Amino acid sequence: MALRIVYATAEHASLLMDMIKELAEFEKIPHGPTITIDRLADDLSKEHVFGLVAYEGETPVGMSLYYLAYSTWEGQFIHMEDLYVRPDFRKKGYGKALWSEIAKLSKEKGMTRLEWSVLNWNTNAIDFYKQMGAKDLHATGGWLNFRLGRDGIVRLAANAQNT
Amino acid sequence: MALRIVYATAEHASLLMDMIKELAEFEKIPHGPTITIDRLADDLSKEHVFGLVAYEGETPVGMSLYYLAYSTWEGQFIHMEDLYVRPDFRKKGYGKALWSEIAKLSKEKGMTRLEWSVLNWNTNAIDFYKQMGAKDLHATGGWLNFRLGRDGIVRLAANAQNT
Repeated sequence: MALRIVYATAEHASLLMDMIKELAEFEKIPHGPTITIDRLADDLSKEHVFGLVAYEGETPVGMSLYYLAYSTWEGQFIHMEDLYVRPDFRKKGYGKALWSEIAKLSKEKGMTRLEWSVLNWNTNAIDFYKQMGAKDLHATGGWLNFRLGRDGIVRLAANAQNT
Repeated sequence: MALRIVYATAEHASLLMDMIKELAEFEKIPHGPTITIDRLADDLSKEHVFGLVAYEGETPVGMSLYYLAYSTWEGQFIHMEDLYVRPDFRKKGYGKALWSEIAKLSKEKGMTRLEWSVLNWNTNAIDFYKQMGAKDLHATGGWLNFRLGRDGIVRLAANAQNT
């Protein structure tokens, strides 16, 4: 059966939320997702995030969620945040079809980068990325990513001058 | 003299471009920046990227550029892309003032993450981030970041079904 990929709208929020949770289970962080369906729907309609949904016939089998990041060297680019194919539908090229769709979007917009994160134990995915010609920014460039959480944000904000 | 931090508009693009280039020199990648002043001005006006400019009196002494990223677990958050204080104006707390302003923005918007990248040899910066309570996502969570460049994007896009 042919795969069909559609752009997500707010109406896909519930379905996307199901798959966000399935992906978090796979990543062994099942309590990671805290956003609600309503908030995701709102964020999709405001284009804070964008999505693709893949269907085999009428069955939703996978998705990707991404946002528009920005490089002060090269301009806007896609950050692929989630890409997921349901277990029963793997090994059929659907993951690659979603990736290709995102690459097509990047190409059409003249973007020169496409970025994403992966957990270091997910060696199947990493092998696939290397085949695609992607580079590990830590291994090749020495880049590290840091994150400040809510408590740190509140502490640091207390020093702001323009309050 | 007091520091004054203002939100960047398209009119600041030329000044910001100067500082983007100074920062790239510091990062030892002087030919990194390829975008033009006009494109940066357009991207600022379209809110593809946001900026802060710090002035000591009438002298521009530093800047920060950031964009709105998205977590499918926690919603929208700020990715701090560049933060720079000109060499003659360091050790005066201006970098921390810019950081605090970004934290204040994050706090006001109810965001639960603030993220950025750093080169692993920039130990002064890393020490400061650790003092802030930030965590290294590679060391603490095993996250890696991958990037596909223009050639890889074009190759991958050739497989897209919906062309």
